[in-house]
Amino acid sequence: MYAIQYGDDIIIIDCGNKFPDESLLGIDLIIPDLSYLEENKEKVKALLVTHGHEDHIGGIPYFLKKLNVPVYATRFTLGLIELKLREHKLLRETELNEINSETMLTIGKVNISFFRVNHSIPDCIGILFNTPEGNVVHTGDFKFDFTPVNNQYADIHKLAEIGRQGVLLLLSESTNAERPGLSPSERIVGEHVIEAFLKAEGKIIVTTFASNVNRLQQVVEATIRTNRKLVLLGRSMVNVVDVAIERGYLDVPEGMIIEQNEINDYPPEKVTILCTGSQGEPMAALARLSTGNFRGVDIHRGDTVIFAAGPIPGNERNVTRIIDNLYSIGAKVIYGTGSTTGMHVSGHGYQEDLKLMLTLIQPQYFVPIHGELRMLHHHRLLAESVGVEEGHSFILENGDVVDIKNGEARQTRKIPAGNTYVDGVGVGDVGEIVLRDRKQLSEDGMLVVVLTMSKSERKLISNPDTITRGFVFVKDSEQLLRDVNRLIKQTVNDIKTSERSQWGVIKQDVKKTVGQFLYEKTKRKPMILPIIIEV
Amino acid sequence: MYAIQYGDDIIIIDCGNKFPDESLLGIDLIIPDLSYLEENKEKVKALLVTHGHEDHIGGIPYFLKKLNVPVYATRFTLGLIELKLREHKLLRETELNEINSETMLTIGKVNISFFRVNHSIPDCIGILFNTPEGNVVHTGDFKFDFTPVNNQYADIHKLAEIGRQGVLLLLSESTNAERPGLSPSERIVGEHVIEAFLKAEGKIIVTTFASNVNRLQQVVEATIRTNRKLVLLGRSMVNVVDVAIERGYLDVPEGMIIEQNEINDYPPEKVTILCTGSQGEPMAALARLSTGNFRGVDIHRGDTVIFAAGPIPGNERNVTRIIDNLYSIGAKVIYGTGSTTGMHVSGHGYQEDLKLMLTLIQPQYFVPIHGELRMLHHHRLLAESVGVEEGHSFILENGDVVDIKNGEARQTRKIPAGNTYVDGVGVGDVGEIVLRDRKQLSEDGMLVVVLTMSKSERKLISNPDTITRGFVFVKDSEQLLRDVNRLIKQTVNDIKTSERSQWGVIKQDVKKTVGQFLYEKTKRKPMILPIIIEV
Repeated sequence: MYAIQYGDDIIIIDCGNKFPDESLLGIDLIIPDLSYLEENKEKVKALLVTHGHEDHIGGIPYFLKKLNVPVYATRFTLGLIELKLREHKLLRETELNEINSETMLTIGKVNISFFRVNHSIPDCIGILFNTPEGNVVHTGDFKFDFTPVNNQYADIHKLAEIGRQGVLLLLSESTNAERPGLSPSERIVGEHVIEAFLKAEGKIIVTTFASNVNRLQQVVEATIRTNRKLVLLGRSMVNVVDVAIERGYLDVPEGMIIEQNEINDYPPEKVTILCTGSQGEPMAALARLSTGNFRGVDIHRGDTVIFAAGPIPGNERNVTRIIDNLYSIGAKVIYGTGSTTGMHVSGHGYQEDLKLMLTLIQPQYFVPIHGELRMLHHHRLLAESVGVEEGHSFILENGDVVDIKNGEARQTRKIPAGNTYVDGVGVGDVGEIVLRDRKQLSEDGMLVVVLTMSKSERKLISNPDTITRGFVFVKDSEQLLRDVNRLIKQTVNDIKTSERSQWGVIKQDVKKTVGQFLYEKTKRKPMILPIIIEV
Repeated sequence: MYAIQYGDDIIIIDCGNKFPDESLLGIDLIIPDLSYLEENKEKVKALLVTHGHEDHIGGIPYFLKKLNVPVYATRFTLGLIELKLREHKLLRETELNEINSETMLTIGKVNISFFRVNHSIPDCIGILFNTPEGNVVHTGDFKFDFTPVNNQYADIHKLAEIGRQGVLLLLSESTNAERPGLSPSERIVGEHVIEAFLKAEGKIIVTTFASNVNRLQQVVEATIRTNRKLVLLGRSMVNVVDVAIERGYLDVPEGMIIEQNEINDYPPEKVTILCTGSQGEPMAALARLSTGNFRGVDIHRGDTVIFAAGPIPGNERNVTRIIDNLYSIGAKVIYGTGSTTGMHVSGHGYQEDLKLMLTLIQPQYFVPIHGELRMLHHHRLLAESVGVEEGHSFILENGDVVDIKNGEARQTRKIPAGNTYVDGVGVGDVGEIVLRDRKQLSEDGMLVVVLTMSKSERKLISNPDTITRGFVFVKDSEQLLRDVNRLIKQTVNDIKTSERSQWGVIKQDVKKTVGQFLYEKTKRKPMILPIIIEV
């Protein structure tokens, strides 16, 4: 998420979500910290969306609940946003505005226009902000595809014209700033898909990102070419294909799509299955197919499974687990990234794409965006290699502000920013403390110690009750737990009666001695929770 | 771990450990299930070790505690095994036998000889078992390096001779069965290391696998060439280098290695640091250096950090996190796998290496080993492409047995086998139940409910005590917890006095109602633990 502010007008660009890594136990989603924008609620005028990927629209429902401003996006992107808003029951109260690469907007003193770019989802745009201080360009995610499947190539002429007029600041995406060369055209995937279809004997199962409609189109072409019917599996695949067909981004012949319960009416060599799960998501269609847990649909020996998508870093293990399952069924599996099978190309520009963008725009100042630090770093070097002055690039962290004044850009303030965790319906209520507890619980479990003490005499009036989970298997550890009980009693009794008045002291001592004892015996550190019951 | 049995003699090959993935919460190590071998204790005669990598020796201490048999390994491998046995205080009672590629052994009716192979650690061997039923070959991990750094190339002549004599069954490793071509020589890493050293200005920090001694040797050469001193950081780096120097596998000039506290006596351009942490291990030297948490040693702007090792699948995130940290310090970072920087080559043979082995040995039967299912599958196809008959390859799971009789091999029985989890000092005591609890605790935390009930009247004699961890941040959730308390009281009171006699009923009801309530309110499912105190 980026924000452009001129005077009292703040314009937001994209509002995505990240997915948590394994260290964020139990967290479902990560969205941007909106506190600064909430404090400046009245200034926030609009949300512009460059394209429909999760990391650009996933946070929108949470954003709109706090800041109900008009949303501007292209036709296909709006379709995906509407799916989300419907889920969150926000569709009615949201103002959605459809734009295209020709739209002109004016918000306060800022004139806004757009340009078409290529990416792994249709209808992507970049944004030109014409401000009294100068022009600012935000590329969105992009690559240059000179032979795009939908023939809508990135609008190079417009970019050239924008560059000619002069751009003060360019924000350009950096995902592939480490990769030399030019990002290959989506069309080569189509060629490899056709080849695989012509060779295949049984059913063909293709998994890819539902939102990569141009890739879906090429799978449809191959399905037509081999006289197969098409079955869609997985909620997001069905939803996105609906949107894509209904809005004219995907062209599927009448009667080609059949229902999953019709599969067995056709011989395997007449069926193509298009399904979710290319990232190995355990609950997605492909994962369930690979373990025979998808009701009514099976993969058999001789069927061909095509991964028309590379694993996103971090998903490799889940993906290979599924590939192994598919092999054990006896399926043919075609997988591996572009270089090896040609079944996937990146939607992000490589170094030459990035240099082309920088060369077209010729910015005075440059902010590499959308990438991890090393990618931003490499992108900065690319910018300098094509003429951006040293010191005119800013590598920003969340919250960093670049101020523009009299044609000069300077990195100045920092505003509160960061990550907000979503867990269930809770947004931002799970913080470091809860996560630290979850981590300890996840590694060594816990032991609850209930001490029933008489208020008057301040001593134990019965044996301590202990209950443990995730620490040791109780049935095998009765002796250990008996020893713990003995130790607890002794510990409490060793405390001077005078000090027994403060339950806090007792809890601390029990925690300490039991903790040490268990670590000695097991080299584990379960969370120890003493509870004192006064009677 | 593999076992060869002839008559009443069982010979074990390697005993490694695996590292748990994130789903095995709190597990430190995974070792083979030894129950079958323990039941046949008296038959187990020896442990042969092909090389010193963790996945081949990591389980040995646990193995020897159960089965104290003689261990046979080469000089360098023994050095690493001794480090482990010393840690586990097993060195004295273990019989260690040094072997080399010329050694001959006889165990029962089985004659055993060895052959040298190349790999990413010195002193690797494969094994030939000459049994009355025929010859069985186990390759260990291998590649063919015709220009090895230590000039000890794989013993092709011996392999040819073994093949000529006839081999009934080949077990060959499969790690890179998916990669076309021939595994590149370790020597190319040396060339790229030298180049990087000649370009570098400040300190040079090289991280790699401590056990890849030939790579360390090339770093030493580059350090000599650039008149630098060498500092070793990280326990395993120090230990392995000691073993390697002392046993003559690593050649370091007198006085070249300095202590870490001497670093600042030399200008940065005169220092090379060789450290652990190439896999992004959070506790290893490099991770601590990258965050400025290594006492007495700092990485500064202008220093060069070289990753002379590719990330093992699953470690990518940890590695890139460190690379990002290094960039934020301003260090130059050289990383990426072989193709991009040439700073790493695999120790495992590619498809042409595997075909060369198969062609040399010409086995009648084939078992692809050491790889995930898809790799075994590809290796089988390779075997068939060079003449192994279809149906003569066996893709085995843990516990599968191949029986050889009258020159025929058949996959027959399955013996109990699988994984044993090590957690702290506990070996095998953490199973599915404990792990399931840890998972639930890790995702949504828990809520303990203590009910103090009068034995006589069977009713609550005080407010329930609730204590929660890892579920919600208590300070922000007082209302929620008050509601829970009210709900608990109500639930208990709603139970007919007659049924209150069984505490079980009360616990169940509380669990159920509170669980439902909390899920409605939070969409989380904390573990709910009712405890009843009778007074």
